[in-house]
Amino acid sequence: MHIDGFWAVVPAGGAGTRLWPLSRSGSPKFLHDLTGRGRTLLEQTRERLAPLAEDRVLVVTGERHRAAVRAQLPDLSAEAVLAEPSPRDSMAAIGLAAAHLERQAREHDQDLVLGSFAADHVITEPDIFQDAVRRAAAAAREGWLVTIGIEPTFPSPAFGYLQQGEPLPGGAGAHRVRQFVEKPSVPVAEEYVASGEYRWNAGMFVARPQVLLDLLAEQDPDFAATLRAIAAEPDRLGELWPRLPRIAIDHAVAEPAAAAGRVATVPGDFGWEDVGDFDALGSLLGDQDRVQVLGDGDAVLARDASGVVVPASGRTIALIGLDDVVVVDTPDALLVTTRERAQDVKQVVAALKERGRDDLT
Amino acid sequence: MHIDGFWAVVPAGGAGTRLWPLSRSGSPKFLHDLTGRGRTLLEQTRERLAPLAEDRVLVVTGERHRAAVRAQLPDLSAEAVLAEPSPRDSMAAIGLAAAHLERQAREHDQDLVLGSFAADHVITEPDIFQDAVRRAAAAAREGWLVTIGIEPTFPSPAFGYLQQGEPLPGGAGAHRVRQFVEKPSVPVAEEYVASGEYRWNAGMFVARPQVLLDLLAEQDPDFAATLRAIAAEPDRLGELWPRLPRIAIDHAVAEPAAAAGRVATVPGDFGWEDVGDFDALGSLLGDQDRVQVLGDGDAVLARDASGVVVPASGRTIALIGLDDVVVVDTPDALLVTTRERAQDVKQVVAALKERGRDDLT
Repeated sequence: MHIDGFWAVVPAGGAGTRLWPLSRSGSPKFLHDLTGRGRTLLEQTRERLAPLAEDRVLVVTGERHRAAVRAQLPDLSAEAVLAEPSPRDSMAAIGLAAAHLERQAREHDQDLVLGSFAADHVITEPDIFQDAVRRAAAAAREGWLVTIGIEPTFPSPAFGYLQQGEPLPGGAGAHRVRQFVEKPSVPVAEEYVASGEYRWNAGMFVARPQVLLDLLAEQDPDFAATLRAIAAEPDRLGELWPRLPRIAIDHAVAEPAAAAGRVATVPGDFGWEDVGDFDALGSLLGDQDRVQVLGDGDAVLARDASGVVVPASGRTIALIGLDDVVVVDTPDALLVTTRERAQDVKQVVAALKERGRDDLT
Repeated sequence: MHIDGFWAVVPAGGAGTRLWPLSRSGSPKFLHDLTGRGRTLLEQTRERLAPLAEDRVLVVTGERHRAAVRAQLPDLSAEAVLAEPSPRDSMAAIGLAAAHLERQAREHDQDLVLGSFAADHVITEPDIFQDAVRRAAAAAREGWLVTIGIEPTFPSPAFGYLQQGEPLPGGAGAHRVRQFVEKPSVPVAEEYVASGEYRWNAGMFVARPQVLLDLLAEQDPDFAATLRAIAAEPDRLGELWPRLPRIAIDHAVAEPAAAAGRVATVPGDFGWEDVGDFDALGSLLGDQDRVQVLGDGDAVLARDASGVVVPASGRTIALIGLDDVVVVDTPDALLVTTRERAQDVKQVVAALKERGRDDLT
């Protein structure tokens, strides 16, 4: 049950710093199996999109990760993995794919719609996800920039939110988006959730390639023109890419377009987790009263302990008398902290960078 | 200022199970630097005894550790390191040395005194220690079995105690020992300390070799006779050793001899620590509000943390938001626990043995 003319765009970037030392710039989060299902986040993302897009998938990743991405997704052609010469945030990554698809649509007179989905999120109910994407694609064909709004399960201060407006006429459950709001404080997030009007912005955008690029052009004509120039002459990628601004698609397009009444949303009532840190990983893995092992359970001996243990070095780990602890054991670096302090892991990475330990970060 | 005719006997045994994974049967506690001074406990023991015994030192250790002991104490002759064919506890180890020394005293018509001191204790004031041994040796020449009683600094339930009796006439501070008592409960230990009559039994015994063996013979004539037979015919060690009982010198000799009024004690008011577990190691290393690193401090990045970290694998260790934590990182095994649970480390070792992981224990 694929969607006609639907292309899945998968930006695969970001070091996942708060998941250090498992995730690093050289081996980022999306290349890891963080669910214990034997499949990496990237592999799971591709599998989730296959029923919608078949082989119409474009992964956009850094030069240094291109080989790893191709190794994990051997069914994709070489052309399906676009390499960014340097990190330029999500607008450039998704915009590059959009420019290629816009060109292809014009050359072959096709009606294409693209949907962009991060390579490192976990979705526990793929059927419901696929349903939401189908509804989003239908609205996108009407010319909307469509985002999937995740039903918030708690007042998280870690995500951006979107405010839902009136239903679209004949929009099969799609609503106008009034505004996007950045990560709120917990009290504000509580108001959002209580109001029933707000949903999490999971960065899932569905649109015609031309709609997306035209919206970008309204804000930054040079940006859109440069992306279109690269699509016209792919050999100029190395020359033109460094000129692109580093900006997220949310700020570059979604926020101004929402203010102009051009964004719609469809509800996504599936389980979603961005696994931003080891606390989130603990929630994902389950039972809070036990030690959750991501990897070989036989490598861990736990007594009177709970938390998350990642044995990724082949060594035996003994854990006694600690609750909500986080132990991540890799061949060259060890992290010991608590789920409560999971956000502070990025400070360690910053400190290591200051010390010039690029080998570890 | 050595003591005439004084021999230091150093039983070097015990796996130090509660210091796993640093200390193991294949690499026991006494072979490690647990003080951060760049010298192992065995090396420090030998240095502490040198002013008293010069090169009159006998180390008694297991076959498998003989090479390591000799490598750490290169100034000792091959004959100075006695190898036990199998572990037989402290009476056999010290008794073997005593039997050799008794024989030598007789053959050369010498008046010898031996003092036995564990290879894996830490003594922070060696001058005061050496003074106590001198006074103990003087009482030993009068025919006493003399033990050095450590001034207790807190009501520890982890040590045995001895009860001091009346002063010996002309004994220069030596007292009779009324009794030895096994590890008490904390309330009982509190009474002991409050009474001022009790001291810690640190297993330091000083006596003429013949006095020690005769006291043993009173309890177990075969045991003493077998030790003397080995000293007479060293080639029979392998044949006779397995017949020896596994018993501590405290039970085999000290307790019954005290009951018979044959044991004296001199006070030892020096800093003493048996470093039995990682909590004791933490106390030894100092400041309780910081992370104490035994090893390369540059390998550890700590934030809002306190406790003991042993980086013994060359890896970088990051520690965030944990108090009184214990992290011991070796090439094949990692321990994460708290100082409070330090005693339970031996349960992990037992569990690993049950799993047949002799490679790790």
